[in-house]
Amino acid sequence: MGLAAVQATMDRNETGIRTVIGILGARFADRCVLSKAVREQHAHTTTWIENQPPDAVVFPQSTEEVAEIVRACAAHAVPVIAFGTGTSLEGHVNAPAGGICIDMARMNAVVKVNAEDLDCVVQPGITRKQLNDYLRDTGLFFPIDPGADASIGGMAATRASGTNAVRYGTMKDNVLALTAVMPDGTIIKTGTRAKKSSAGYDLTRLLVGSEGTLGVITELTLRLQGIPEAIAGGVCPFPDVESACNAVIMTIQCGIPVARIELADALQVKACNAYSKLDLEETPTLFLEFHGTDAGVKEQSELFAEIARDCGSGAFVWTVKPEERTKLWQARHDAYWACLGLRPGSKCFTTDVCVPISRLAECVGATRADIEESGLIAPIVGHVGDGNFHTSILVDMDDPDEMARVEAFAERLNWRAIEMEGTCTGEHGVGQGKMKYLMREHGAALEVMRTLKMAIDPQNIMNPGKIVPI
Amino acid sequence: MGLAAVQATMDRNETGIRTVIGILGARFADRCVLSKAVREQHAHTTTWIENQPPDAVVFPQSTEEVAEIVRACAAHAVPVIAFGTGTSLEGHVNAPAGGICIDMARMNAVVKVNAEDLDCVVQPGITRKQLNDYLRDTGLFFPIDPGADASIGGMAATRASGTNAVRYGTMKDNVLALTAVMPDGTIIKTGTRAKKSSAGYDLTRLLVGSEGTLGVITELTLRLQGIPEAIAGGVCPFPDVESACNAVIMTIQCGIPVARIELADALQVKACNAYSKLDLEETPTLFLEFHGTDAGVKEQSELFAEIARDCGSGAFVWTVKPEERTKLWQARHDAYWACLGLRPGSKCFTTDVCVPISRLAECVGATRADIEESGLIAPIVGHVGDGNFHTSILVDMDDPDEMARVEAFAERLNWRAIEMEGTCTGEHGVGQGKMKYLMREHGAALEVMRTLKMAIDPQNIMNPGKIVPI
Repeated sequence: MGLAAVQATMDRNETGIRTVIGILGARFADRCVLSKAVREQHAHTTTWIENQPPDAVVFPQSTEEVAEIVRACAAHAVPVIAFGTGTSLEGHVNAPAGGICIDMARMNAVVKVNAEDLDCVVQPGITRKQLNDYLRDTGLFFPIDPGADASIGGMAATRASGTNAVRYGTMKDNVLALTAVMPDGTIIKTGTRAKKSSAGYDLTRLLVGSEGTLGVITELTLRLQGIPEAIAGGVCPFPDVESACNAVIMTIQCGIPVARIELADALQVKACNAYSKLDLEETPTLFLEFHGTDAGVKEQSELFAEIARDCGSGAFVWTVKPEERTKLWQARHDAYWACLGLRPGSKCFTTDVCVPISRLAECVGATRADIEESGLIAPIVGHVGDGNFHTSILVDMDDPDEMARVEAFAERLNWRAIEMEGTCTGEHGVGQGKMKYLMREHGAALEVMRTLKMAIDPQNIMNPGKIVPI
Repeated sequence: MGLAAVQATMDRNETGIRTVIGILGARFADRCVLSKAVREQHAHTTTWIENQPPDAVVFPQSTEEVAEIVRACAAHAVPVIAFGTGTSLEGHVNAPAGGICIDMARMNAVVKVNAEDLDCVVQPGITRKQLNDYLRDTGLFFPIDPGADASIGGMAATRASGTNAVRYGTMKDNVLALTAVMPDGTIIKTGTRAKKSSAGYDLTRLLVGSEGTLGVITELTLRLQGIPEAIAGGVCPFPDVESACNAVIMTIQCGIPVARIELADALQVKACNAYSKLDLEETPTLFLEFHGTDAGVKEQSELFAEIARDCGSGAFVWTVKPEERTKLWQARHDAYWACLGLRPGSKCFTTDVCVPISRLAECVGATRADIEESGLIAPIVGHVGDGNFHTSILVDMDDPDEMARVEAFAERLNWRAIEMEGTCTGEHGVGQGKMKYLMREHGAALEVMRTLKMAIDPQNIMNPGKIVPI
C-alpha cells in the first residue's frame, strides 16, 4: 500500500529530536507537552489511517514564537507539523518521522476587522464558527464551511471549501494574504490588503493548499461577504440522480447565482430522515439555498423550480423562514453522523472526487453501481454545483477483507474521476492517503511540485511524508 | 535608475545565440525571422521603456514545437521570451540579453468549448475579442477585459483584469488549468477541468502572473460565464472624488453584484467628451454596469441610485438599451486615446496602483494634489470596485526634466499605495519597469520568489531581467 511505502522511507533523527525537545522544553516550559495522550491526540485520529504521534506538542502565542520553534527544528533537521483542530481526513497531521507539532489553539485571535473593505485579519487557530460568531454584529460573514468546525489556518492549508463554494469560491479565492514562517524560520508576508495585484509570483496561492509542507501559516487576511438581506432555502426530490444532475447543470448555465446546491442520494436521505427526524421522500434530493434581496431570492427560487420541473423533479418546497431553513441545513451538515447510524459500530471512509459537471451524473451513476457490486454501504452527498461529491463508506475497520474491498473501490473511483478530467480530491487534500494518486493526476507536473518543495524546504522538515514523495 | 541597473547585469551569450539561430533557422525555415524590423516590433513598444529586440522571432504552431524551441535554447543557455500581442506596459517582452522570441500568433485556435461545463480550451495566441466573437453563438463569454485586445496567454502571464473584475475576478480566478513548457522543455499540465481541487501545489496560480519567467504557456482551460439575460448601464456624476468613492464602498458593502464600476475624474471626463463626442458633466463620474435578469438589473440600478443620492451624487441615468450602453462603454474603453488628445504629440505614462477601497478616496485625492504640484497633465480612471486606479500622465518623452518629474511622481504614488496596504501594480504586472518597487512591497517574500525562480529555471533563460533580479 502507498502509505506503508511512504512510511518506510521516513527515518527518525533521534539525536536532533532529543536536542530540540531540550531547547523547546527550556523555552516554552508547560507550553511544550510530551505526554503520550496529548501527542496521540495531535496525530491523525479521524479515519482508518494509522496514528503517528509527534514527539512533542508546543503551543506558541505569536508568529515570533512559531519562528523560534521552526528555527530550532531547522538547526537540528527535525520535522515541524502545524496543527489546527485535527479534523483533516488524509493523515495530514501525522508525524511519520516524529518531530514537533505546533498547535495553533492559542493563536486564535481576530486581529482586525476592516468592515469597509470587507476583509479581516485573523490568527490561524480560530475556527470558522468562532470567526462567524465574532463577525455577526458587523453584518459580514466568512463563507467557507467544510463539514467540521475546522481552524481557518488548517482550512487554508488544505484549500478547503464546502457547501458555499459554488457561489463564494474556495479558500484559494478567499485568502487575500498570509503571514508564514518559512523552513529556515524567516517570516514572510505574501500579499497586501489590495483586492488584486500583479506584483510577482502568487505566494498566497502557493501556500494555500500546501498542507504545511512549505511553511507554517501564522496569520491570514481574509475576504468577507455581506450577510445577504434575504436567504431562501428548500429541498427538491428527483426520480434519479441523472435528472437531479441535469437540473444542476441547467441552473449553473442559466447563471442563477445559487449559494448552495447539494445532492443527497436516496440512501443519504434515508439516513438523514432517521437521524434528524425529517420526513423527506427517500429519493435523490437537491438541497438549495439562495442569497440576495427579497425579490431576488424569490425570483431565483422560482426560476430553479421551473428548471427542476423541466428535469422531472417533484415539488420544490422553499422557504425564507430561518427556523425551517436551519433544520434542513442542520440535517445536511449532520449527514456524516446520520451515515454512521446506518451501520452502528462502523467507521466512515470518505472519498472526495470532483469532475466537470457534464460528467457528474455518469460518475455518480458508475460509482453507485460500483458500491453495489462491491457489497458496500455508502451514501453519496455532493457539492454538485462544483461537480464534487463524497461517498461515505461505512466499514468495519477490523475486517481486512472489507477494508481491501473499500480501498479497491476508492482507487477505482479516483481513477474514474481523473479519467473524466477531474481530480481525486476536490477539497480534503492529499495528506498521506492520496499521495499515490498524484502521479496519475499530475504526470510531469508532480516533478515540478517536487522541485518547489526541495527548493523551499531542502531539509524536508516541513510536514514530511505528505503531498510529494521526497 | 532601476532599469539601467538591471540591464547592466545582463550579459549576452553570443556563441549560444548564434548556435540556436542556426538550429531554429534550419528547423523552422521562414517561420524563424531575423529582420530588424520584425525583431523591433517584438520588443517593448508601448511606453517610455527602451526597445530591446530579441535576436530572432520564431512562430511555432503547437506545444511540441514550443518545446523544441525551448529545448534548443536550454541546451545553449539562450533566453526565451514568449510574445502575445506586445501590448504590455512595463517592458515584459524586452530582450535585455537578446535571445529567441516565441510569437504565439499562429497558436490562436479555440481547441474546445465545453458549454455544459462553462469552460473552454484555447491556445495562447487568441485575443480576448477573437475568443468572445467565437463564443457569441454559445451564449457564453469570457469576462476579462484589459484595455488592449491582448492575447489570452499574455493576459494569463500578467495576471490581467479590467473593468469586469469586481464581479468576475481576474485571470487568476478564470484560468482552470494550463499547459506549459518548462525551462528544460518538459511539457506539463497544471490542472484538470474540475472546478476545484486540493491535489497538491497550485501550479496554475504560480504560472498565472509569472510573466514568462517560469515557463511558456501553450494552452489554457478557461472558465466562461453565461451572457446575462439583461444588462443595464449608466453614468452618475459626483461633486468630488470622495463622494464617488463613498458610493463605491457602500455599493460593494451592500452586496450589490455590480458588474462594472469605473471612476473617471473631471479631466478624464473632459477628454472623453472631446474624443467621443459626449456631453457629460465635467466632474468626477462613475460608469456602471449591472448584469442579471430584467427585474434584477432594475433592482440593482435603483438600489445604486439611492446609495449615490445619499452620497451627494447628481442624477444617475441608466438604460438597458444596447446602443446607449455601448456608446458609454466605448468612451470608457477609448479613455487612453481620449487622454492623448489633451496634449497632442505627447505620449502616455500609465500608473497602476491598487489599494483597499477604504483608502481609495484618500489615495486618489493625494495623487491628484501631487499631479498638480508636479505640474503634470494626468487624468485618472479606475476600476474602483477593486480599489485599482490609473493615472495617464501625458508627457514629452524627449524632455528629460519632465521625464524626471514623472518618474519621481510615479515613485511617490507607488510608495503611497504600498504604505496604504496596497500594491504598485493591480493588473499591469512588473516587467522591467516595476522591479524596483518589489523589495519595498514584498520584503523577505521577494527572496522566496527568487528561490522559486532559480529552482525552476536555474539557467535564468525564461524571460530574464523581469520580476525578480537574479
